[in-house]
Amino acid sequence: MYKNGDKKHTTEAMKNFTSVHDVDDIEALLQLAKEYKANPYRSSKFGRNKKLGCLFLNPSMRTRLSTQIAAQHLGMEVIIFNAGSDGWALEFGEDVVMNGTSVEHIKDAAPVLGTFFDVLAIRTFPSLTDKAADYAEMVLQQFIKYANVPVISLESATLHPLQSLADVFTISESLALQKIADRPKVALVWAPHIKALPQCVANSFAQWMNAWNKADFTIANPVGYDLSPAYTNGARLTNNLQDAITNADFIYIKNWSSYDDYGAMPVVDEPWMLTLEDLKRTNHAKIMHCLPVRRNVEVSAALLDSENSIVTTQAGNRVWAAQAVLTSILKDL
Amino acid sequence: MYKNGDKKHTTEAMKNFTSVHDVDDIEALLQLAKEYKANPYRSSKFGRNKKLGCLFLNPSMRTRLSTQIAAQHLGMEVIIFNAGSDGWALEFGEDVVMNGTSVEHIKDAAPVLGTFFDVLAIRTFPSLTDKAADYAEMVLQQFIKYANVPVISLESATLHPLQSLADVFTISESLALQKIADRPKVALVWAPHIKALPQCVANSFAQWMNAWNKADFTIANPVGYDLSPAYTNGARLTNNLQDAITNADFIYIKNWSSYDDYGAMPVVDEPWMLTLEDLKRTNHAKIMHCLPVRRNVEVSAALLDSENSIVTTQAGNRVWAAQAVLTSILKDL
Amino acid sequence: MYKNGDKKHTTEAMKNFTSVHDVDDIEALLQLAKEYKANPYRSSKFGRNKKLGCLFLNPSMRTRLSTQIAAQHLGMEVIIFNAGSDGWALEFGEDVVMNGTSVEHIKDAAPVLGTFFDVLAIRTFPSLTDKAADYAEMVLQQFIKYANVPVISLESATLHPLQSLADVFTISESLALQKIADRPKVALVWAPHIKALPQCVANSFAQWMNAWNKADFTIANPVGYDLSPAYTNGARLTNNLQDAITNADFIYIKNWSSYDDYGAMPVVDEPWMLTLEDLKRTNHAKIMHCLPVRRNVEVSAALLDSENSIVTTQAGNRVWAAQAVLTSILKDL
Repeated sequence: MYKNGDKKHTTEAMKNFTSVHDVDDIEALLQLAKEYKANPYRSSKFGRNKKLGCLFLNPSMRTRLSTQIAAQHLGMEVIIFNAGSDGWALEFGEDVVMNGTSVEHIKDAAPVLGTFFDVLAIRTFPSLTDKAADYAEMVLQQFIKYANVPVISLESATLHPLQSLADVFTISESLALQKIADRPKVALVWAPHIKALPQCVANSFAQWMNAWNKADFTIANPVGYDLSPAYTNGARLTNNLQDAITNADFIYIKNWSSYDDYGAMPVVDEPWMLTLEDLKRTNHAKIMHCLPVRRNVEVSAALLDSENSIVTTQAGNRVWAAQAVLTSILKDL
Repeated sequence: MYKNGDKKHTTEAMKNFTSVHDVDDIEALLQLAKEYKANPYRSSKFGRNKKLGCLFLNPSMRTRLSTQIAAQHLGMEVIIFNAGSDGWALEFGEDVVMNGTSVEHIKDAAPVLGTFFDVLAIRTFPSLTDKAADYAEMVLQQFIKYANVPVISLESATLHPLQSLADVFTISESLALQKIADRPKVALVWAPHIKALPQCVANSFAQWMNAWNKADFTIANPVGYDLSPAYTNGARLTNNLQDAITNADFIYIKNWSSYDDYGAMPVVDEPWMLTLEDLKRTNHAKIMHCLPVRRNVEVSAALLDSENSIVTTQAGNRVWAAQAVLTSILKDL
Repeated sequence: MYKNGDKKHTTEAMKNFTSVHDVDDIEALLQLAKEYKANPYRSSKFGRNKKLGCLFLNPSMRTRLSTQIAAQHLGMEVIIFNAGSDGWALEFGEDVVMNGTSVEHIKDAAPVLGTFFDVLAIRTFPSLTDKAADYAEMVLQQFIKYANVPVISLESATLHPLQSLADVFTISESLALQKIADRPKVALVWAPHIKALPQCVANSFAQWMNAWNKADFTIANPVGYDLSPAYTNGARLTNNLQDAITNADFIYIKNWSSYDDYGAMPVVDEPWMLTLEDLKRTNHAKIMHCLPVRRNVEVSAALLDSENSIVTTQAGNRVWAAQAVLTSILKDL
């Protein structure tokens, strides 16, 4: 059984986990993650006889592995289902005549998955062309609507809450290690890329940082790359990279495509790839990135290889974030 | 250890599970499925240290998940092997010079799998062009011949016994819930589709319904779509859809391609897609389908969304059917 | 806990397992494999709470299944990750500008995998075009360099040590069964194939046979197919097939492409495919092959089907070899 003597750190059971809004108490989740990192098997029977189904509508490495490991730590049985390689095209349209390429409707598939599993975890992705559908989280919301069991987002069209919880945990843990009590300066900075990426990781990090509200939080991006105010409200926004990183304690580097000109990649003339040189104006900043990262495109290889980089620790923390979330979801099952 | 106090419900151990002919006592299997549905983990150590290898020569969702879950409920270790995505083309020809695309002969592959696993479960599929080879179950039979361990069909060229056991269980369970003691009226009705599908599910349901023999069983299909008499014998056969569903208690909707003009799709002029309207002449019929289903092609979306539809329950029952079968196979191991 | 009362059979913990050079004591590994074959679950809690990550950069059947089963026998948690189907192209170049098709650098990926897992097992493959990179084991060595946990080779560019340990175990076991105390005559013989295969299995078998040094070991191949002396030194080398198999107790049949003219397939005029007829000049030789085998191309179907063939036993022994290696790796964790 799950044991937590410290009552004030106990979160209420979550129904779903799709954004920071599903979380009552971020600190309690962080505390749980910390306890699991100290002792991964401390609640190794808490998920016994509970089945987690992980459905990937697009591929994943870190998210899949960390979630699977977190569930195993809790004694859950995990089954992975890759929709792509397992040849399964879903239909989401209302009352469509299904005489095309999709072979099964979400209305039929989701309830069956909900019958098979106690908890579903699902990875969807944005079209980057239909902004309204993406930002309505059409696919994820239909899963939730029809699955009849708790649903955990393994990254959706607009958010990546498991990543963000791990990100906040990584910052929190680093502060504790450095015995920093003050509000640290955290900068989320846009980085170049060769193709149009979702806004998920950036939206989600912004949402969590603002909700957590324990840092002086700045978002820097070139003109044309502003994120949705729904997530950035509360942060300082700038188009000046150097301003954003000055005296920064943490720099989160991430590319995203345009929200306003949805999915586009407006030309950026100034240099936005951070290098070792840029560290000088920071407060010995820790460098974060969700990975995978394109070296010497998003960030210089030397900076990633420097001791300032905490990207491996950050990725490793994905396990404890997932384990905290699974525990919170399991509480009422 | 597996416990079953009620001796008369104990089936003998099955050597293989490929059709209803491998089953001594259908009622005993149904009883076992019922017990597992009531308590999934009642025999959670019965399969301990037994390994189930599931080999998919074509992809699957419900069959894979339900079998994997059933085996986990019994404490078995399950390994999934997808021949397609794992890049493995098998040869079945006798004394062929293997200088083509197939990389391994069934004579070499099957015994190795039999060495690795205590039980093998295999999904094959029909060519829909070579009727003799398909109906001889050439692929499945060669696996059985060379594997040296019990083999469970996860759907073969002509039959789908795990589906059918779940189907019969679903009917049996529904009758018990409704306290119907009489022989219910069950209709298997052909439905339109956009491509040529195997006859497996229909053949197999017919075979099981006739062997079970607790229902007034009718099969309705358009001219040109008669199934093999080897499976339909014992059922009332008709080309009149409306006749078949009149007063029906259960309607099983399923497409299949032609058996006579093997794999063809003879043109059907009359409407064969059931809608809500058609329910009126039934006895509040329960609607069944093995899924996946093409909405508004095979059956109207409204009928699937109505309270008469039991397709989710039917799919969920796949777990208990598989668990009953695995238990029966494990008895002698 | 792992129990082994017989102290002299206890190997030291291995840091990695990539070739025979990682092994202190081959006999101790063989003894461990023998004990596991007699009782697969004798140390079923030895790997408890230890996680094995298996990363396949190219597909596999026997290696994947045997390693997964071996780990399960030890109570380890195993996660399989197929780089191909899971869509993940790695970069290995130093300080490359990653603006091409590779999405993640080994320097970033390997440490994360090392954070997730206690032991990594990795399958790489040769280019068959860049001899220097292949024989430097560039990919495998970079994994080892950056993973920070023990690495087991599931076949690399030039070697296949888990296969070779199973091969030596199979010979050793067969000798014990036949109560042969003398040095048996073992011939590794090249066989025809339709495409260029790696030298891994042959290199590795040669390396292990020479290190084991309990057999009179001959390697026979056509002109142009000599293996690297780094592996063959210690063996008798010949271009005469019939000489090699005369009085042989074991014949290991395997194709490989040219080492000297790297990856080429020099034309071979003489017949090199062994048949039943060839058995006559052997000492009732046991026929070995690592599988998959192309029947009637590499070896006649009749010879594979004869009682002299031990290929199924050999493949089955992959489990015990892997289990012995995992145990040795786990000792210090």
